[in-house]
Amino acid sequence: MNPIDASRLWTPAGWQRDRRLHVATDGRIGSTEHAGGGEAWVVPGIANLHSHAFQRAMAGLAERRGDATHGDPANDSFWTWRETMYRFAARIGPESLHAIACQLYVEMLEAGYTSVCEFHYLHHAPDGQTYAEAATMSHALIAAARDTGIRLTLLPVLYMTGGFDGRELSPRQRRFGHRVDAYLHLLDTLAEDSGDAVRIGVALHSLRAVPPRAMAEVLAAIPPAMPVHVHIAEQVAEVDECVAVRGARPVQWLLDNAAVDWRWTLVHATHLDDAEVQGIAGSGATVAICPTTEANLGDGLFPLRAYLDAGGAWGIGSDSHVSVSPVEELRWLEYGQRLQARQRNIAASGDGASVGDTLLAGVIASAQHATGHATGALVDGAFADAVVLDTGAPAFAGLHERDAIDRWVFNGNRNLVRDVLVGGVRVVEGGRHRDRDAIAARFGATMGELLRD
Amino acid sequence: MNPIDASRLWTPAGWQRDRRLHVATDGRIGSTEHAGGGEAWVVPGIANLHSHAFQRAMAGLAERRGDATHGDPANDSFWTWRETMYRFAARIGPESLHAIACQLYVEMLEAGYTSVCEFHYLHHAPDGQTYAEAATMSHALIAAARDTGIRLTLLPVLYMTGGFDGRELSPRQRRFGHRVDAYLHLLDTLAEDSGDAVRIGVALHSLRAVPPRAMAEVLAAIPPAMPVHVHIAEQVAEVDECVAVRGARPVQWLLDNAAVDWRWTLVHATHLDDAEVQGIAGSGATVAICPTTEANLGDGLFPLRAYLDAGGAWGIGSDSHVSVSPVEELRWLEYGQRLQARQRNIAASGDGASVGDTLLAGVIASAQHATGHATGALVDGAFADAVVLDTGAPAFAGLHERDAIDRWVFNGNRNLVRDVLVGGVRVVEGGRHRDRDAIAARFGATMGELLRD
Repeated sequence: MNPIDASRLWTPAGWQRDRRLHVATDGRIGSTEHAGGGEAWVVPGIANLHSHAFQRAMAGLAERRGDATHGDPANDSFWTWRETMYRFAARIGPESLHAIACQLYVEMLEAGYTSVCEFHYLHHAPDGQTYAEAATMSHALIAAARDTGIRLTLLPVLYMTGGFDGRELSPRQRRFGHRVDAYLHLLDTLAEDSGDAVRIGVALHSLRAVPPRAMAEVLAAIPPAMPVHVHIAEQVAEVDECVAVRGARPVQWLLDNAAVDWRWTLVHATHLDDAEVQGIAGSGATVAICPTTEANLGDGLFPLRAYLDAGGAWGIGSDSHVSVSPVEELRWLEYGQRLQARQRNIAASGDGASVGDTLLAGVIASAQHATGHATGALVDGAFADAVVLDTGAPAFAGLHERDAIDRWVFNGNRNLVRDVLVGGVRVVEGGRHRDRDAIAARFGATMGELLRD
Repeated sequence: MNPIDASRLWTPAGWQRDRRLHVATDGRIGSTEHAGGGEAWVVPGIANLHSHAFQRAMAGLAERRGDATHGDPANDSFWTWRETMYRFAARIGPESLHAIACQLYVEMLEAGYTSVCEFHYLHHAPDGQTYAEAATMSHALIAAARDTGIRLTLLPVLYMTGGFDGRELSPRQRRFGHRVDAYLHLLDTLAEDSGDAVRIGVALHSLRAVPPRAMAEVLAAIPPAMPVHVHIAEQVAEVDECVAVRGARPVQWLLDNAAVDWRWTLVHATHLDDAEVQGIAGSGATVAICPTTEANLGDGLFPLRAYLDAGGAWGIGSDSHVSVSPVEELRWLEYGQRLQARQRNIAASGDGASVGDTLLAGVIASAQHATGHATGALVDGAFADAVVLDTGAPAFAGLHERDAIDRWVFNGNRNLVRDVLVGGVRVVEGGRHRDRDAIAARFGATMGELLRD
């Protein structure tokens, strides 16, 4: 494959000059040498740690006061949003899921995401019946990743109960549900798809949707290095219910009842006490923070500074896809902290440290554990998943190494990604995905059908 | 001039179908008729109520922990940012200001801003000496507005003291300063530039920079309908100092000591008590909220819901230009409220109301008072300042009137502005300003000089 010539190559230790990355046929960096030439400023591709692909199609459709709330915003919350989401999900089958996911993955790639963890719970037909091929919806996502060139971690979701009390799934939730044996069978089926382009992991929907015994059974049955993701502590109501039913806050309960380690990704983990902050950080698990979705849903702010001080690992996810941009996630992760603390430059790691460099280093460090892929830092043996910044853009005028990442993250609104490579293959060039127009046309037709009155 | 054919025309009362806007030679809408044809979804251009143009050039350059803060974020604040800004401002003269402002105004127009209020305090030479032509820097901004086609409200800033105690300006602040007579003379000089493209207003930098007697003198001397803008209550330290020295919180002091009415725009007004919320709303003044800058600087969150309930007028400003997008301002104005309240859809005006429509209606309603121009709603007699949405973009797939503005504001990261007209002249077409490349090239050269080590 063609080598990647970097006039500047970003690494967590700083920028290197004049590096040539040789890419092997398997898409990994075979060797790196000092070589002049080129003008590309190259940074690692970003891992998107949390995605519900189908929700891309409802972005902008739930930004109105629900009639049920009677004008009182105190009644308009995550839980009313979830009702809208359930109604929308009920229209989506494998064809439309594929069309939506292709559009989403094109947008991710153009924004600089080179891999995505798909937290996939839309398993069955809208009426709740299992498809003849149980993995039909999973395969729609795998096909979308293959067709667009993004690296995928498919996380089929185990979803069993409608609440901490163990109640049955509601009619709308039935298409999400599995018994443990059927779930493990789905994992077995999907193992055949596993390779360099796709890794399979486990997703526990949440503590309220997975009883303790089922969680233990699944964790005992899966291969030892398989990634495990779980929604946790996103909502205050969820924390309160967990305390009432299981006698502990959700993160504390999980730390006490599972061998949480580097294989684990805790999604959101918004509402933490000090012991939980220390507990996650000490476990080696990654927190997947989803700033734009957590803002859209009014979840709250992750305790970033305390968690960084504890040495915790973290990454970002675009989750509901109201935004599809690592820039907006990282910018507002930092800004949320500033608004709360009434201070600036919260995430920066020390005197003179750039916020952008610190944030990018955090995201890169967690990518391999959270995705299960050899992605993240651009080092020999890792996949050549890389972004070339659009250094010709006005936002980079008068560029210096010291502020390049800050300018990417904290400067204006144009997309500053020029080219994107996944496994050394240039899937985005000049800011455009190679199949942008065809995929957008199919997405448009699908949306027209989904939203017909 | 060519008429504007709107398949859909957004008005605060809802979308109208098949409207033809006839534009007179002075750029105003002469008449509107029902006429078929066209596919354009037309919304009013957005007024940007607060801009310090030169700060566009330092976006991304202050996102690092200051050495002086010794790694303690509690020491990194608005006030350390201000030191960086002062050092940067010291390099900027009329040529570079013109180049930077042209780039900024191109970005504003491409984002859907059709007018801008320039809160301009960089009056004198870097050494503090008055230019031979005292209005040299003001004229650089007027030229940039003319050269790019944006409608300008130039607000020369009165800046006299370095604090509430009346201390002299520091050496770095001297180029901002005027005595009252020289300031009024500058206003007189600039009156010659006033017309349909440019309106002149007054800016009082802040209560800490303008002694009470000087404020009263200026307000007594200016024409009765001239806009008056003032920075107020952005920082807690400023509120505390005002209470200590003047015996009242800044907004309360202003309401008690000036005839605050619809001519007034209060910039930020972040830190308000209940009486101040009611006081501003009852006065008819506009609050210019600057969500991205207020987040970048860690200022805090404006009490939006209480202010809307009180019937207050408000608009948005991009201020320091870390972001240049009405979408990011409006999206995060709403999101900040959601994060604080842990609820959704805060700004929506009632049952079933769209957040996007409510926010857009707010911005449109304040435009004329705050800018002094007949801009805002697209009605007969108002300027034909309009935006055509890029309804062919994937973000609008399956579009309905009910969610069009929500999709513009709350859906993804691509610029969804296709064409922009100012006074009926199409200055942006297909997302690109007519002089984008030439202006970017000149900006790039200017930045190279400004940032040379």
